[in-house]
Amino acid sequence: MSGKPIPNTEDPDALDAEILSEKDFIHLFSQIFQFKNKPLLSGSEFDDCAALRLDSFCKDLPLQSLTFSTDTVRESSDFPAGMTFWQKGWMAAAVNLSDLAAMGSDPVAFLASFGLPKTISLNDAGALAQGIQDCVSFFGAEVIGGDTESNDELTITGTVIGISENKNLILRKNVKFGDLLCVTGLTGSAGVALSILLGKIRAENVSDAFLKNLTEPFPRIFEGKMLAKSGAVNSMIDTSDGLASSVYELSALSGVFFEIDEQSLPFDEEALEIIFLHLKNKCEQNKHDQNENENDKIGLNGNDAAFAAEARAILAHEALYTGGDYELLFTIPPDKLLIVEKLFETFNSSTVADTADRFNGLSSAGKSGRFPCKFTVIGKTIAEKENVVLRHTESGQVRQPLLKMGYDSFKKYI
Amino acid sequence: MSGKPIPNTEDPDALDAEILSEKDFIHLFSQIFQFKNKPLLSGSEFDDCAALRLDSFCKDLPLQSLTFSTDTVRESSDFPAGMTFWQKGWMAAAVNLSDLAAMGSDPVAFLASFGLPKTISLNDAGALAQGIQDCVSFFGAEVIGGDTESNDELTITGTVIGISENKNLILRKNVKFGDLLCVTGLTGSAGVALSILLGKIRAENVSDAFLKNLTEPFPRIFEGKMLAKSGAVNSMIDTSDGLASSVYELSALSGVFFEIDEQSLPFDEEALEIIFLHLKNKCEQNKHDQNENENDKIGLNGNDAAFAAEARAILAHEALYTGGDYELLFTIPPDKLLIVEKLFETFNSSTVADTADRFNGLSSAGKSGRFPCKFTVIGKTIAEKENVVLRHTESGQVRQPLLKMGYDSFKKYI
Repeated sequence: MSGKPIPNTEDPDALDAEILSEKDFIHLFSQIFQFKNKPLLSGSEFDDCAALRLDSFCKDLPLQSLTFSTDTVRESSDFPAGMTFWQKGWMAAAVNLSDLAAMGSDPVAFLASFGLPKTISLNDAGALAQGIQDCVSFFGAEVIGGDTESNDELTITGTVIGISENKNLILRKNVKFGDLLCVTGLTGSAGVALSILLGKIRAENVSDAFLKNLTEPFPRIFEGKMLAKSGAVNSMIDTSDGLASSVYELSALSGVFFEIDEQSLPFDEEALEIIFLHLKNKCEQNKHDQNENENDKIGLNGNDAAFAAEARAILAHEALYTGGDYELLFTIPPDKLLIVEKLFETFNSSTVADTADRFNGLSSAGKSGRFPCKFTVIGKTIAEKENVVLRHTESGQVRQPLLKMGYDSFKKYI
Repeated sequence: MSGKPIPNTEDPDALDAEILSEKDFIHLFSQIFQFKNKPLLSGSEFDDCAALRLDSFCKDLPLQSLTFSTDTVRESSDFPAGMTFWQKGWMAAAVNLSDLAAMGSDPVAFLASFGLPKTISLNDAGALAQGIQDCVSFFGAEVIGGDTESNDELTITGTVIGISENKNLILRKNVKFGDLLCVTGLTGSAGVALSILLGKIRAENVSDAFLKNLTEPFPRIFEGKMLAKSGAVNSMIDTSDGLASSVYELSALSGVFFEIDEQSLPFDEEALEIIFLHLKNKCEQNKHDQNENENDKIGLNGNDAAFAAEARAILAHEALYTGGDYELLFTIPPDKLLIVEKLFETFNSSTVADTADRFNGLSSAGKSGRFPCKFTVIGKTIAEKENVVLRHTESGQVRQPLLKMGYDSFKKYI
């Protein structure tokens, strides 16, 4: 198991043998959720309510807004097999923080409502809470309260509270015609990691860090705050349900449509290599099985260049239509591009050292972190009334409608 | 179904025939959660985050605290069979508001994270959301955001945000030796209602209003705020898990123990009547079945006075050890008793009219509301190191240990 050791569980077997009650879990969690910033909390960690003194975190009160987001993760729909409890906790916090990042807001506090299976051990519950604590504190906030109930399925609903200067709140609806469409980090990696864990892509020797693209989402809190303060960004959203889904969301609220250039999507070299080898191995296996028809059918003629092109196409599909990346998708006027480039340059050079220091306090997600963080222009607004994707094939460029497809928990992939 | 009609569902069958997506529910909910107090929200109802302008609800910012609570309710553990979707929504909001009431805080905003079964109709989802909206707005707050995901089981995690003057925050740990133990409203009614719905108590012609003691909990927000401002209250908690459980919680945090006088517990006459008739009918049924032994075994000798005494004992057990009442349990120094009595007198005479007006806007829980609200002294602190209950039997007074028993979702009744 990754994550820090859990306090007061020297003899987990002895503890696990008892019949656990709600109070046992509350007691355990209250040990793990340490308030570093004591004056922040004017209430008591033992009451059902937590209280935040307004003067402790708001410097310029009347010009600020509190921001809130709530999101639920649960075993059967959000945790691929093999995830540790620490990772499940980290993810529960990270998906909430990512919503705050998309508004450019600064996280202050976090509440966790736990639905725990009656069979969970105190050790595992502790690792879960530690994952939340590590993620929340990494991004500068505090766990201030929560609720613990039993549930047939492990379920965690997080609520994050942040603060923003009113003038810096970035909303989805403010896309301006003429804006460039940009994304932070790399795209499609979480989708590839999911395909590996589901056995749809056969891959050997995949690095642990690569799988963490899916299992330890890294909310772009620092980048979101920087972008919000820059004054350069018109609109922003995260890519948790896939790039296409986020683009459609921006369009629906702003009435402005986009063209994405598939060739410009930023990919992880390891992701491309994984898919390339998967295709190559599959082709050789087909040859070995004297099943050449299969290769013809899927267009694999055994040429490395063809495998590479096909790998790019598959990765583009993952980036556009699969959730889990938690990058920031934002729009800027073209004349602000240089400002944003400069910002990221300064951000990466000045914060890497600081971030590396912070990472040393973490055993897991932090170290797989995605720094330095680049950003990429992947498209632009268009006068048409539909979103399109520009594809590059052997026979030239093709403009195709962007599919309205992405993660939807009611339909999985719609 | 109770509750207001749901907007935009003129042809529910047509709507239900479609395959619903997350966006369908978000669209529906955004119609129901109306922000009356527009300037409160500086964000957008379409973003994943909601934003509250600090200057819109804090008059005296540096001297105030924000309060937070989160609680989950779900189909299999919180909703007795027969509850309407409107009631399920009302309950999801009410249990969260009750935590705020126990701190004497003023609710400002509410977030709802929905886990909806894929089979739910838009009509039912709408009634659910309307129940939340009605409860939250009844107590003066606004639904500012949420999250919608699919779930095998209907699950709602609410998060409520309130505001308090720092000096008025009431905590559980501040019991002072010498304090009187008081409770608002009536006790044990929710437990009796549950026994009726579970078929453990046979009762005919039970009023709808009586069952609402369980299905439409009424958070004591107004009373909590009044008590917090009075300066008379040392500690406070709600009785959601039963009186005994709350008493043990106060003791654990303050180190002060209590004696509860069973005879002083405030009961609903209808609850006593229901149990009285249940016992009498059972006794007559046993006679009719020539099963007198059974009557002897349970001590029912056919005497009305004996039935009445037994009914009081059963109702006391429900009050002490069954959850669901959502009253406020608070402690005051004896010299403040007159002040609190005066407060409730003024509160009941001045707010009934106002409250009745508010109730007219509601079709259900409001009208069953528990006004005027009395409060009762039910016990006192004692020098012993255990909590006791003073019972009154035919042979005189008996002091017995208060059982450490109440609602615990991990064990149901521990």
